[in-house]
Amino acid sequence: MSDPVLVEVLRGAFVESVHRGAFAVCDAEGKVVLRAGEADRPIYPRSAIKALQALPLIESGAADRFGFGNRELALACSSHGGEPAHVEVAAGMLAKAGLDERALECGAHWPSSAAASQALARSGGKPSALHNNCSGKHAGFVCFACASGIDPAGYVGVRHEVQRFVAEAVSQMTGHPLDGDTAIGTDGCSIPTYAVPIHRLAHAFARLATGEGVGPERAKVLARLREACAAEPFMVAGSGRFCTDVMTLLGPKVFVKTGAEGVFCAALPGQGLGIAVKCADGTGRAAEVIMAALIARFLPMDEADTEDFARFLMPVQKNWNGITVGRIRPAGPLRA
Amino acid sequence: MSDPVLVEVLRGAFVESVHRGAFAVCDAEGKVVLRAGEADRPIYPRSAIKALQALPLIESGAADRFGFGNRELALACSSHGGEPAHVEVAAGMLAKAGLDERALECGAHWPSSAAASQALARSGGKPSALHNNCSGKHAGFVCFACASGIDPAGYVGVRHEVQRFVAEAVSQMTGHPLDGDTAIGTDGCSIPTYAVPIHRLAHAFARLATGEGVGPERAKVLARLREACAAEPFMVAGSGRFCTDVMTLLGPKVFVKTGAEGVFCAALPGQGLGIAVKCADGTGRAAEVIMAALIARFLPMDEADTEDFARFLMPVQKNWNGITVGRIRPAGPLRA
Repeated sequence: MSDPVLVEVLRGAFVESVHRGAFAVCDAEGKVVLRAGEADRPIYPRSAIKALQALPLIESGAADRFGFGNRELALACSSHGGEPAHVEVAAGMLAKAGLDERALECGAHWPSSAAASQALARSGGKPSALHNNCSGKHAGFVCFACASGIDPAGYVGVRHEVQRFVAEAVSQMTGHPLDGDTAIGTDGCSIPTYAVPIHRLAHAFARLATGEGVGPERAKVLARLREACAAEPFMVAGSGRFCTDVMTLLGPKVFVKTGAEGVFCAALPGQGLGIAVKCADGTGRAAEVIMAALIARFLPMDEADTEDFARFLMPVQKNWNGITVGRIRPAGPLRA
Repeated sequence: MSDPVLVEVLRGAFVESVHRGAFAVCDAEGKVVLRAGEADRPIYPRSAIKALQALPLIESGAADRFGFGNRELALACSSHGGEPAHVEVAAGMLAKAGLDERALECGAHWPSSAAASQALARSGGKPSALHNNCSGKHAGFVCFACASGIDPAGYVGVRHEVQRFVAEAVSQMTGHPLDGDTAIGTDGCSIPTYAVPIHRLAHAFARLATGEGVGPERAKVLARLREACAAEPFMVAGSGRFCTDVMTLLGPKVFVKTGAEGVFCAALPGQGLGIAVKCADGTGRAAEVIMAALIARFLPMDEADTEDFARFLMPVQKNWNGITVGRIRPAGPLRA
């Protein structure tokens, strides 16, 4: 992989580490308007495409049947911090289907929010599958199954009907066949993840941005998902998290979602563009800065937003005494 | 930085992420016996050189005056998990100088050991500077100052006498002048970190391995530090940590120490070699695999050790359900 350096990590004025990566920015017709690195190579999109994986939940009628609003739909698209509100909404989704956390097959882990994790420990509690950062997506899978007459047991399996519907939605949105030639991995939460070329992910997010090329019914569903995340950005990630903070600042002008191993996807409705990023070494801090640089390039911002957005574009690094020791900045083709 | 790919991260059979890096392996005369990437470029060694930074503690007579044994000396060289034994030994070191945690200037953070962090929260406690992963090094600085008639206040400052002694030891060991041309950064624990070429760090660790070229007195001190860490590997890092586990497995045959931002250094006494590694993107998981591959190449192991060592060379990645989802492996010039 011969990706260019896109991010530099400085300590003082000295470049201490560098991150390489690839990205594509596409319009709704699939035309690549900007790219860097090997943007045609397949990558595992991981959690960056949870919004696409949530399509069957709405399209099956399950979300309406259970009366899911913005909070539930945003949580279905989320990688959350396991904070109390996230856990509560995930539990509420399952309760609508007459189930509880025992229906989740994502595994348990301590909340990824350090504060939530400490609070849970302090209360003498233990993490359950509801604290898993993917519990909203999984609650969505379970609810989709229940409303569709599908037995949810084993729903994480690659051959289970739930995952076949999910894979079909991803394939339709990306325009990429998920067939015998597709690399399939097991995600952190045990569902399959399918390798899709970076520029095809960008195309899918341009469709999410515009609703073009997917038919009028799906276009409505995509808009509903975007609107839910814009209305409830806390549900998509949590306290101090990039996705939540960027969508809180910019509102419906951007939908942005992180994935493990340095993946990031975004939709810019006003520009009709989709963005897909892969930091080659899988590091989140760099994927965030690459994504921030691409948002800044394509989304016009007023002076106040530009100033506020600088903390995503050039994050300051502080040490344990709160002293500023360095910063992270876009580099190479992303340099301002 | 045009470093080669040295590590691949696989999910299933698919390469999901890659890590580039540089390394040098040197003998005690400074001859480079193996290298990859830009091994002449200066890097911040961060915590990988704590053993060198501990030299004034012993050479000043402070360690003897306070009766420090293997546990205290190993902790002075450590980046520990903030587990109870680490905290206890750090507090004990300060008590010998008639001081307590208020003398530490490293800042407080929650224990880097998740289990220790949860236990601390569960007990209703809060982290202090003793839980800081650098508290052993800092306790050593404070004790060195107290035994040497130096006021420890402000000991983290680049112009403070403590740091001038520390910098002199590092300069002597690496053979690299720390002068006006040297990039200086502020480390996570607030002390200065000086940029030193990778191959000169490897040379310093070959000297640590052999005691050659440093005079008989310092040679004894270096042996004492190595022996302390070999005797108390838990003190150097903690539960489930690479440095502790590798030194527990291989005993005095290897001294190995991690640093932030993908730095790793090692000394192989039996081979008379020093190793210095920098993962270009600053990722610890890759620096560990690079170091493991270099240890495996230069340190002869019997069949049992070889088998045991495979978990460092090709670590298995499991997800939240304990399912094996992939592995990390040496690549490019490090491929077996």
